[in-house]
Amino acid sequence: MISVVILGTGNLAQHLCQTFSKTNSIQLIQVYGRNQSNLTWFSSYTKICSEPKEIAAADVYLIAVSDNAIEEVSHHLPDSNGIVAHTSGATPMNVLSMQNRAVFYPLQTFTKGKTVDFGSVPICLEAQNVESLEVLHNMAQAISSKVCHINTEQRRQLHLAAVFTNNFTNYLYGIGEAICKRNQISFDLLKPLIQETSNKIISLSPGEAQTGPARRGDEKSMNQHLSLISDCNEQEIYRLLSESIKTKYEKEL
Amino acid sequence: MISVVILGTGNLAQHLCQTFSKTNSIQLIQVYGRNQSNLTWFSSYTKICSEPKEIAAADVYLIAVSDNAIEEVSHHLPDSNGIVAHTSGATPMNVLSMQNRAVFYPLQTFTKGKTVDFGSVPICLEAQNVESLEVLHNMAQAISSKVCHINTEQRRQLHLAAVFTNNFTNYLYGIGEAICKRNQISFDLLKPLIQETSNKIISLSPGEAQTGPARRGDEKSMNQHLSLISDCNEQEIYRLLSESIKTKYEKEL
Repeated sequence: MISVVILGTGNLAQHLCQTFSKTNSIQLIQVYGRNQSNLTWFSSYTKICSEPKEIAAADVYLIAVSDNAIEEVSHHLPDSNGIVAHTSGATPMNVLSMQNRAVFYPLQTFTKGKTVDFGSVPICLEAQNVESLEVLHNMAQAISSKVCHINTEQRRQLHLAAVFTNNFTNYLYGIGEAICKRNQISFDLLKPLIQETSNKIISLSPGEAQTGPARRGDEKSMNQHLSLISDCNEQEIYRLLSESIKTKYEKEL
Repeated sequence: MISVVILGTGNLAQHLCQTFSKTNSIQLIQVYGRNQSNLTWFSSYTKICSEPKEIAAADVYLIAVSDNAIEEVSHHLPDSNGIVAHTSGATPMNVLSMQNRAVFYPLQTFTKGKTVDFGSVPICLEAQNVESLEVLHNMAQAISSKVCHINTEQRRQLHLAAVFTNNFTNYLYGIGEAICKRNQISFDLLKPLIQETSNKIISLSPGEAQTGPARRGDEKSMNQHLSLISDCNEQEIYRLLSESIKTKYEKEL
């Protein structure tokens, strides 16, 4: 049984709390946070505390706060032998000063109120020493079937890749929605296409799955599309992404 | 029973052929095409022909060829009362000169060898006259639960929106894959995130689902990301999309 304290009360902390509560080999013994109203949510699952000196002794302290607060929160921790792991993709392990430092990074997008099945969420681990890595590995395996070990530099790059495939992709969905709205078309019409686009790359590489006017080098269709866009910013995005796709694939045409 | 001839032998023609074959109220009586090797594939489903004068009389002729060949192929058709519908998002209905012209546009991405469940594919219809629209509506409803009527201008805009949400999104997946490769990380790690990103917009609008450094106006993280990107083109895409997101949401911060 691994005893865990979570520091932080946001989305990720909530999702971890719910998941740990259902996991036999992990005992969530406390949640620490300074936002009292957020903290209350956790009281039906475990003990809560908002004073640093009340933080309990545990095998693992998971820091699930915003990136710029990680270092400060780590100073609230008691001197203990517990492993201290932050959960951030973009933050080096070394912002933590203790010997027992580590990273426990679940690569997923977490939204309040929308349940995430942790079983398929990749958990990326890093630790200063081998014993800590083993404890975190057991803990990660208890909640997910996808556990991997990557270093700080790889994690940073993975986080960058996640911005392209999650944040930017979602922004493109938003442009699709805006075009629909402007033309009195239901955005629902695009949803099956959006689903299929993401399903495709389970079985095909993005290179194999690429289609569209830019992929074919079809200048006529691209110019027609550009003439349909009134928003300058959308026009610029259309141009840049089309040029990029064209340049990448034109050797194959 | 609606009798149908398909003109064309590509991806869409194959998917329509398989779907019609399983649909009681639609009888696919013939497939016409000039690419003999592609055409052979259809012979296990229905009659095939490659001579314009052999095209059979039918209630509906579906032209499923590349956009720039639609007009030419329409001239191969016999003088008949059959409805002639093309299947293109980007092409106006009026490239067809016959009185009985129409559009039967399934909004989905079709890949060779990957089965698509037509039941959830939106089918967008347009027709020159009301009787044709009714026939096509019945036909579309026989294979899909999502049938809508949109005009040429709306269809063009919908096709443009599809380029943003499908072609461009897939290109961003490719950048994610490239970043992983360069850093010896498995692209599989990003796939659950990609799935969840597309699943989110079933229940949330893209605006509600938007997260990330640009959404938060977090300049430090954005600059850190930019310093990690060596490829100029990827850098330019990161910059443009981050600026766009930042500008869109900064009023809310």
